[in-house]
Amino acid sequence: MFDPACPSNATPFQIGDKWAGMVLVCLRDGPRRFTELRVPMHRVSAKVLTETLRALERDGMVTRTVHDEVPPRVEYALTPLGRTLFPAMDACRAWAAEHLGAVLDARDDYARRSA
Amino acid sequence: MFDPACPSNATPFQIGDKWAGMVLVCLRDGPRRFTELRVPMHRVSAKVLTETLRALERDGMVTRTVHDEVPPRVEYALTPLGRTLFPAMDACRAWAAEHLGAVLDARDDYARRSA
Repeated sequence: MFDPACPSNATPFQIGDKWAGMVLVCLRDGPRRFTELRVPMHRVSAKVLTETLRALERDGMVTRTVHDEVPPRVEYALTPLGRTLFPAMDACRAWAAEHLGAVLDARDDYARRSA
Repeated sequence: MFDPACPSNATPFQIGDKWAGMVLVCLRDGPRRFTELRVPMHRVSAKVLTETLRALERDGMVTRTVHDEVPPRVEYALTPLGRTLFPAMDACRAWAAEHLGAVLDARDDYARRSA
């Protein structure tokens, strides 16, 4: 789902902390359990993912629901407010898809000029 | 130009480092000298502003031109690539204008629930 080699890591746009944007994308198609989120976000430690989810919950973007089962099932889901981020996020992602190559080229040029 | 009390500091969107977005906005209407940039960005140290400008130059968003005068005049200007950021930036700012209040309310609710 997320290619580590994807240059979008170099995009100047960032939403929330480093991983919030990815979490939002993971939740776009519906609620997910913590363990389900860790699959596409395997590069993120459980501790960091927990902090990202908590920050998104604090900002009203995500809900955390504990289902009264044995064992208890914890699910994360986007709120309507969380969904309002997607148009701007999509604009940022479209920018990255179109222009990121030019940013990477500029960085190479700058490195050569500064060498 | 930039109201320190403006809640947009709480927006989840960030472009480049902390101050890059503001620098881009300052350059939107044309080239500016370093000292001119420091007026609207008075909360930013010269060192940090220099680093922000250098990062934007490295990414191909801004040019730094030294005019051969006495004393030498250094001007910063947006590149065409830098200008491509504005549609996505404007989408992020429009999101903040419409939804930031809800984020701040959510943070208050979260604080009460967690107290």
